[in-house]
Amino acid sequence: MTYRAPVPDIVFTLRHVAGFDRAVADGVYGDLSADLAETILDEAGRFANDVIAPLNREGDRVGATFKDGAVTTAPGWKQAYAAWTEAGWNALPGPVEYGGQGLPTLLNSACVEMWNAASMAFGIGPILTMGAIEALSAHASDDLKSRYLDKLVSGAWTATMNLTEPQAGSDLAALRSRAESAGDGTYRITGQKIFITYGEHDLTDNIVHLVLARLPDAPAGTRGISLFLVPKFLADGRRNDVRCHSIEHKLGIHASPTCTMIFGDEAGAVGWLIGEENKGLACMFTMMNNARLAVGLQGVAIAERAYQQALGYAKERKQGRAIGAVEGMSPIAVHPDVQRNLLTMKALTTAARAICYMTAEAIDRAHLEENPARRKKANERASLLTPVAKAFSTDIGVEVSSLGVQVHGGMGFIEEMGAAQHFRDARIAPIYEGTNGIQAIDLVTRKLPLAGGETVRGQIASMRATVARLLKESTPAFGATAPRLRDAVESLDRATGYLLQAVSSNAQGEALAGATPYLRLFALAQGGTALADMALAAQARAKAGDTDPAHAGRIALCRFFAENIAIGARGLEETVMSGAGFLQDANLALAV
Amino acid sequence: MTYRAPVPDIVFTLRHVAGFDRAVADGVYGDLSADLAETILDEAGRFANDVIAPLNREGDRVGATFKDGAVTTAPGWKQAYAAWTEAGWNALPGPVEYGGQGLPTLLNSACVEMWNAASMAFGIGPILTMGAIEALSAHASDDLKSRYLDKLVSGAWTATMNLTEPQAGSDLAALRSRAESAGDGTYRITGQKIFITYGEHDLTDNIVHLVLARLPDAPAGTRGISLFLVPKFLADGRRNDVRCHSIEHKLGIHASPTCTMIFGDEAGAVGWLIGEENKGLACMFTMMNNARLAVGLQGVAIAERAYQQALGYAKERKQGRAIGAVEGMSPIAVHPDVQRNLLTMKALTTAARAICYMTAEAIDRAHLEENPARRKKANERASLLTPVAKAFSTDIGVEVSSLGVQVHGGMGFIEEMGAAQHFRDARIAPIYEGTNGIQAIDLVTRKLPLAGGETVRGQIASMRATVARLLKESTPAFGATAPRLRDAVESLDRATGYLLQAVSSNAQGEALAGATPYLRLFALAQGGTALADMALAAQARAKAGDTDPAHAGRIALCRFFAENIAIGARGLEETVMSGAGFLQDANLALAV
Repeated sequence: MTYRAPVPDIVFTLRHVAGFDRAVADGVYGDLSADLAETILDEAGRFANDVIAPLNREGDRVGATFKDGAVTTAPGWKQAYAAWTEAGWNALPGPVEYGGQGLPTLLNSACVEMWNAASMAFGIGPILTMGAIEALSAHASDDLKSRYLDKLVSGAWTATMNLTEPQAGSDLAALRSRAESAGDGTYRITGQKIFITYGEHDLTDNIVHLVLARLPDAPAGTRGISLFLVPKFLADGRRNDVRCHSIEHKLGIHASPTCTMIFGDEAGAVGWLIGEENKGLACMFTMMNNARLAVGLQGVAIAERAYQQALGYAKERKQGRAIGAVEGMSPIAVHPDVQRNLLTMKALTTAARAICYMTAEAIDRAHLEENPARRKKANERASLLTPVAKAFSTDIGVEVSSLGVQVHGGMGFIEEMGAAQHFRDARIAPIYEGTNGIQAIDLVTRKLPLAGGETVRGQIASMRATVARLLKESTPAFGATAPRLRDAVESLDRATGYLLQAVSSNAQGEALAGATPYLRLFALAQGGTALADMALAAQARAKAGDTDPAHAGRIALCRFFAENIAIGARGLEETVMSGAGFLQDANLALAV
Repeated sequence: MTYRAPVPDIVFTLRHVAGFDRAVADGVYGDLSADLAETILDEAGRFANDVIAPLNREGDRVGATFKDGAVTTAPGWKQAYAAWTEAGWNALPGPVEYGGQGLPTLLNSACVEMWNAASMAFGIGPILTMGAIEALSAHASDDLKSRYLDKLVSGAWTATMNLTEPQAGSDLAALRSRAESAGDGTYRITGQKIFITYGEHDLTDNIVHLVLARLPDAPAGTRGISLFLVPKFLADGRRNDVRCHSIEHKLGIHASPTCTMIFGDEAGAVGWLIGEENKGLACMFTMMNNARLAVGLQGVAIAERAYQQALGYAKERKQGRAIGAVEGMSPIAVHPDVQRNLLTMKALTTAARAICYMTAEAIDRAHLEENPARRKKANERASLLTPVAKAFSTDIGVEVSSLGVQVHGGMGFIEEMGAAQHFRDARIAPIYEGTNGIQAIDLVTRKLPLAGGETVRGQIASMRATVARLLKESTPAFGATAPRLRDAVESLDRATGYLLQAVSSNAQGEALAGATPYLRLFALAQGGTALADMALAAQARAKAGDTDPAHAGRIALCRFFAENIAIGARGLEETVMSGAGFLQDANLALAV
């Protein structure tokens, strides 16, 4: 079962939930129109379907291979990457002054979803390049920018993020890689980095490593970390002192090489400082925040792919007889329990997509709004939503791909079918770019207190506004949507109040213990009201005479989410409110 | 990280939740005592730890291999299987008249858990042999019994279940394999069967296939299916006309060969009828019901294994600093969010174990009670609990192994760590032996109406009795356990009433649409009150002066389940009550 980019759903979400139309009306997107956006997305969808998606199975089967320090990508990958950059897709969001098209993050997010749905192992590479472009644009010297940005924007070269070391994963304070000034404006970098995605490969002539390391006499902990640019090849064509030691044998995304990198085996790798000394983590966070959204989009992508695969199978596979049918076997897609699985998959996917796109729109406004106060507000909203977009989307990526295997029955367990690959691929996204536990802690301890709590309160207010519109909507097709979503939003409001209080009174245990269920609760309320925005827009269209059956489908999907998924909100609220009570004897329960 | 059989937890669950002590007191278990049971389980645990567990990684890596019709098991598997049967483990639950030890299903269930936790790919083989022994014992002629049961009970030969055909999976009505009488008391079987676990292998000299096929002129559908015994080798040593065509390339349990079997390529495979003509499905169900419990135990097993692996890693891996610590890094097992993951894993595992063991005890009473009315009641209780044991345990097997990967961070995605294997292995259990959707439908449409609803009402009454005991318990360590579990049980009661009404009024859509969330709701209430039984027993022990810190741990675990997992009950109730509303426009939402 191959991938067909769901461009109509993507465009509808973009326009009627994520606020594309409003941003265009506000002048935030310059002369970009909905029609132009749709044309671009249609084209991107075709490329994803026709060029990238066919790589996915073979990429999984063969994977990236390692020999004598070199990584060879799977058959066809080099050609596909070349075609992709030549078509300008890498340059889509890049800065205009370095050859990019300067298109919004929102539009690019829809594209990122499609590249990753077509093949997650393909899509992850450019995400890192994109992050490096942002970090360099924001923090690098003009000299570095002029030497590297052109090539990175076009995709002629790719980039990597070198953070993790064996003893320093979530906890970067433990980082040991070293950098010393060579006295000529360059530095010499030494150290070992692990889990470096596309750290080595044969897709491009050069690879630009962004590397965290410590200068001599740097303060201990995270305040002593600096960021360096370390190219695989130096300007004069010499190979830099950095090499790939090995690649990992992973559960999924086999075609994406995960490298152990050795810097400075000989005289030290030549590098250039990005930004200021000891401020490397802040620079890296520029990169990581947008990468977090992109990884969230990977969750949406793999969920969409798994859904399409399962739906396709369920429409073809005949077993049992539909309720009311008199003879013969029916496609399993008509059986209520299978429909529940498929609707769960689609509802979660659509909700996660909406949250990611809303986040992208906030990021765009944070950059593009002219009014500084509005920029600041948008930036806070983007900050608030980013951990939710990352963690919820990648969690549901796993859940949806697991349901996808289930819908296939026994065939789901057979690798040749493809459903199993999605299940394997999906599993990395809740881990990398900050584990989902870290996202939840970030949400509760850093994002809720933004603007004295006004950011999250504003977000809840906009959810309530949707609920208010729903309560006025009396169409029977909405079922119990309004009361269920109202309950979810009110649960979120109470849990938010509780956690804001915990954070401000420094009740760390309470805040940390409730972080993960709180993030899920937030996503249920946000995702449910986003689906409601979509359903209300669909309803308005239908009332206006648009006979597209997709509109009734959008209402049904929203109803399903409200009645079958958002109903978890109350329990999550109770969990958050239970606080850290369970931690007291946790060690005994775990017999740690 | 290897496996250590959690014998103390197993014994505690057996005795204080599953009713082992009560059954001994009632004389159901003859002269079996708790001490003897513990001795046997200690021995089984040692075998699982020392002989089976070391096979697991290599079994995954190398897998079973196929060449020229023959299947070779992974290195060391043949020796381990031989040692296992020689030690008498296969014979443990077998009938005494055929060399078995006739020990209870409950005791064997604990062993099945341990074999499968040590290696699920190893453990699945004997489950099928065990099922065949039950089917033959109940339905076969004395002649067939005397020729086959000895060897199957000892494990000298293994058995298979040949149900599935390409067009007939969940829907056995579509079965096409044929059987014709040869006029001499034997039959000739022809047809193709797929997904046959251990259909071919090199562990034993012979393999006994139980095969569903149709006789000429048999009625269409499931009432025209008969069950046959088809040995790989006939009594005179000739190879029967059955062969393995190929084995599957699967997501997990690589060491368990999943075979496509061809019967009757030449003159037809020689087979013997088991039970009556056209009553094959009933015979097969004897086998399948107990196999369903065993697969549930696989879910418990893989969850326990994943939990041990994650806990071990979390105790060793240091990142970040514990709340209140002043310097250095702490093991991640002390961080609240990691503790939440670990506690979720352990609480779900322990609850699923309790439900499986309760089911096993009911099966024992259904066989061993002297009073026919009590036998009948126990049989109904076993019937009610079996789909819950199968579906809940295997669902949480996937959820827990997924959390297990998450606790490892990036290392979880690296195959060499082992966490990924558990995640892959776990994924088959919700599918085979009747998908979990089928289990939920079975629960709602066939099991709730048992004894006019009295079976399920009796079960709820016993949950309420536990809640009543909890409400009298004022120890602060119980936190909000009592109200949370009371709410869960009352939600179950209301949802049960609704579904009983739907089933009796033939509102098929309502019943089928709510089946899966209802099963989960049932399991939350049943699992939560089972943990409470365990916690109350622990509390009583502690009050009586037993200073084992495990008792406080059991209370904390129960509290965690109540406050963090059982809280999903209310939402599930709402979902069930929403009924089939969502089905109305489901096709539009799915764009089927």
